[in-house]
Amino acid sequence: MKHINYKDIPPIQMENDQVKHVAGRLLIGKEDGASNFTMRCFEMGPGGHTPRHTHEWEHEVFVHQGHGQVLLDDTWHDMSPGSVVFVPGNVEHQFRNPTDSTLTFLCLIPSGPPEL
Amino acid sequence: MKHINYKDIPPIQMENDQVKHVAGRLLIGKEDGASNFTMRCFEMGPGGHTPRHTHEWEHEVFVHQGHGQVLLDDTWHDMSPGSVVFVPGNVEHQFRNPTDSTLTFLCLIPSGPPEL
Repeated sequence: MKHINYKDIPPIQMENDQVKHVAGRLLIGKEDGASNFTMRCFEMGPGGHTPRHTHEWEHEVFVHQGHGQVLLDDTWHDMSPGSVVFVPGNVEHQFRNPTDSTLTFLCLIPSGPPEL
Repeated sequence: MKHINYKDIPPIQMENDQVKHVAGRLLIGKEDGASNFTMRCFEMGPGGHTPRHTHEWEHEVFVHQGHGQVLLDDTWHDMSPGSVVFVPGNVEHQFRNPTDSTLTFLCLIPSGPPEL
C-alpha cells in the first residue's frame, strides 16, 4: 500500500551522450510489491531528450504536464497534457522537449527490465 | 503503436448502486497489443465514488487533475494532482470525490481482469 505525491520522491538526474535534461522517479515498483508492472515519472527540461533506441519491452505513456514530442516509425508526433502513447516492444522511439518549459510524463513498463 | 489524447476516446458512463458519477476510458489495452498491463482513465464528478471492494489484482493510480480521496485500510487519504497510489491485490479500497470539481485519474491493472 502506498500513497504519496510523485514530487515527494527525490528525482534521479540522467545526463549522458544519449540522455539530456531528464530527471526520473520510480513511483511504484517491486519494493512496493508491484510484481507485474512499474510506474515511473520523467521530467524533461527544455531541449531535453531520451535515447533513440529499441528494446523488447513496451511503454505505456501518459503526459501529465507540458508539451513534447515522441518519435515513432521515423515520425515525430506532438504530445500535450493528456496525451497517451503506446510504444510496443521492438519499436524504435525517442522522446524530446523542444519547448521552453518542463515536460512531465508517466512511462510504465512491465516488470523485468531495470525499473529506472 | 498509438498516440492519442485521452479525451479523444468516448467515455463510458458508469452508474449503479456501487458506482456514482464515474466515466471510464480504456486508454491502452489488448486491442493495442498491450499484453502485460492495461491503462484506464476515470473522470469522477462531484459526489462520485467507486465501489468499496476487494479483488485479487493490484491498482497503480496517478491523479492527473482534481482532488479526491482513496480508502485504504479503513482510512481515507487525500489525493491531489500528482498523487500516486498503489493498491495491492486483496486490499479493500474505494475512491470518492467530495469536492465540487471533476477528479481525473489513471488506474492501471495487470492484464487478465476486465479491462474497464
